[in-house]
Amino acid sequence: MTTSFAQSDALRSEVDRRLRTFVDRQRPLVSGPELSPLLTTAEDFLAGGKRLRPAFCYWGWRGAGGGDDPAIFTAAASLELLQASALIHDDVMDASDLRRGKPAAHRRFQALHERSGWRGSAVQFGEGAAVLLGSLLLVWSGEMWRTSGLPTEALAAAEPVYDLMRTELMCGQYLDLLEQAHGENTFDSALRVALHKSGKYSVEQPLRLGLTLAARGQEPWIDRLCVEYGQKVGIAFQLRDDVLGVFGDPAETGKPAGDDLREGKRTMLIARTLSAASDRQAGEVRLLLGDPGLNADGVERLRTIIEETGALAASEEMIKRYLDDALNSLEQAPITPGAREALAELAVAATSRRS
Amino acid sequence: MTTSFAQSDALRSEVDRRLRTFVDRQRPLVSGPELSPLLTTAEDFLAGGKRLRPAFCYWGWRGAGGGDDPAIFTAAASLELLQASALIHDDVMDASDLRRGKPAAHRRFQALHERSGWRGSAVQFGEGAAVLLGSLLLVWSGEMWRTSGLPTEALAAAEPVYDLMRTELMCGQYLDLLEQAHGENTFDSALRVALHKSGKYSVEQPLRLGLTLAARGQEPWIDRLCVEYGQKVGIAFQLRDDVLGVFGDPAETGKPAGDDLREGKRTMLIARTLSAASDRQAGEVRLLLGDPGLNADGVERLRTIIEETGALAASEEMIKRYLDDALNSLEQAPITPGAREALAELAVAATSRRS
Repeated sequence: MTTSFAQSDALRSEVDRRLRTFVDRQRPLVSGPELSPLLTTAEDFLAGGKRLRPAFCYWGWRGAGGGDDPAIFTAAASLELLQASALIHDDVMDASDLRRGKPAAHRRFQALHERSGWRGSAVQFGEGAAVLLGSLLLVWSGEMWRTSGLPTEALAAAEPVYDLMRTELMCGQYLDLLEQAHGENTFDSALRVALHKSGKYSVEQPLRLGLTLAARGQEPWIDRLCVEYGQKVGIAFQLRDDVLGVFGDPAETGKPAGDDLREGKRTMLIARTLSAASDRQAGEVRLLLGDPGLNADGVERLRTIIEETGALAASEEMIKRYLDDALNSLEQAPITPGAREALAELAVAATSRRS
Repeated sequence: MTTSFAQSDALRSEVDRRLRTFVDRQRPLVSGPELSPLLTTAEDFLAGGKRLRPAFCYWGWRGAGGGDDPAIFTAAASLELLQASALIHDDVMDASDLRRGKPAAHRRFQALHERSGWRGSAVQFGEGAAVLLGSLLLVWSGEMWRTSGLPTEALAAAEPVYDLMRTELMCGQYLDLLEQAHGENTFDSALRVALHKSGKYSVEQPLRLGLTLAARGQEPWIDRLCVEYGQKVGIAFQLRDDVLGVFGDPAETGKPAGDDLREGKRTMLIARTLSAASDRQAGEVRLLLGDPGLNADGVERLRTIIEETGALAASEEMIKRYLDDALNSLEQAPITPGAREALAELAVAATSRRS
């Protein structure tokens, strides 16, 4: 495992470097005292992150026989711009204050407005600026992808995957809004949202992009690997997210303790809790979940119920089972040994992370 | 003029048809009772509009010798998806209720939430859904452009223009937010916003896209025409917008009378009014402008001041001068006679419109 772990570190610095190069190319267009807050906020957002999506894309490419072409780092890194765009818009939609322990983009622009003593609503200015910055990064992600320097035929082969991924992302996020609005979520509906919002977009499609780029097209074994490994790791990744949103350590997640509970997020973990809860427990969950003023005692009480109903243990069990399935399907796939090792390690990292 | 006006009608139906075909291609991905409101709202938005941007793109293509390739209609029509995206996001940012006489996208999703009796804030749901729909249309515009069927070399030649246009659009909209927030706008700062937000994106860059696609690259005469005709028509277009926002007929604009006044929009027209106003007039403008409860008397009072200061006449004079300059530069450009006639007519239509 040592080799590929070292490779992951190297991959992360390549991705960082390509992102800096791309942003530097845009700098002249977004400079001066007026526009530079857009760029500064973008740079701050791009500096963080685990670079999981670029890693799945890169190892897909290598797995299907792609060489160590510098252009693949650029293409893979472009997925981080897409992710930054989604996070910035997400935080506006959820009215979240924090992202990775620092103010969300819309809060930063709001603070700029307040600090400058401008007229009008600072909140509205902050949200508007964050919507624009998110759209700018969405546009940039496509530009970075297309200008990565990969051969035209490779890009053409992967283009339908790329387009589909972005449509699925927007639709998945809308399904998530609906799921929160419907309220009466079931495990199945939460699972469907997890697959569409995060499973496909975080793991399956980045992997498929890399495989398709290198193989110059889709093939049955690619589809099998993307579904059997990609979707399973993606859902386990989201399950881990659900667990961290309730039990995560604020020092590691950069979010307040029990933040998902205060937001009232309807996750697979919560759906499982409600379906296994006694009437009394279900009543307590409905009362506390989504209370913006939920304090440490309330968080603790909800955590206890989630444990008592067995929902936490069932989620951990499901993560483990999905991970095992994913690792098994890796064994069957006709990919290079180096990629198999790296993808196995990535699957573990994505599902056992602490932030 | 009869010939090219008939051509314009034909062009509009081609654009409409290509948009319907593209949306139909996406339909399977955005179907079912949950996702279909995204598609319905998109279709409603795409059904309206003057198709000016596609027209500038198409006539740029023809002007530089491009043939009647069906693919150019698709590529040009993709600019309407970009425009729909910008309008949907704009209405969220401005908290506008109406667009073309019908509820803005975020208000429709808000109404869906209310009608369905869902939990949580209907306003927040509406805004979130509209942000996602705007992003979806932004993504689709790029997809439609790239899959238009135009030759790869043509698309490659125009790609830098396309990328630049989208970055300029986001930056221009941010400058507009700043202009509204700064409050103390001057004519020069409002002119700069008009150029960046609307001039470049509505006229100059669509035209440049068409010219560059057909010429397979930038050339000095293309740049000259885009600056001298494109920017002038673009600014005159925005000046007409400013005038319509104050004096427009609600039956034609689809917005309440004096809507820009109620919103407190800092336009070139308002900057000119303030710079020519007496102390008393300036005081009245500052008092009334941006008052959300501004009534018909207030609108009438502001209109009178805008006329008395000469700001309205000066704006009409500037529109006329810019239009004359643009028509002169058309005469010098080495483009086909049919395109010259059509672009002259488009310049008039864009600057004398009533909605």
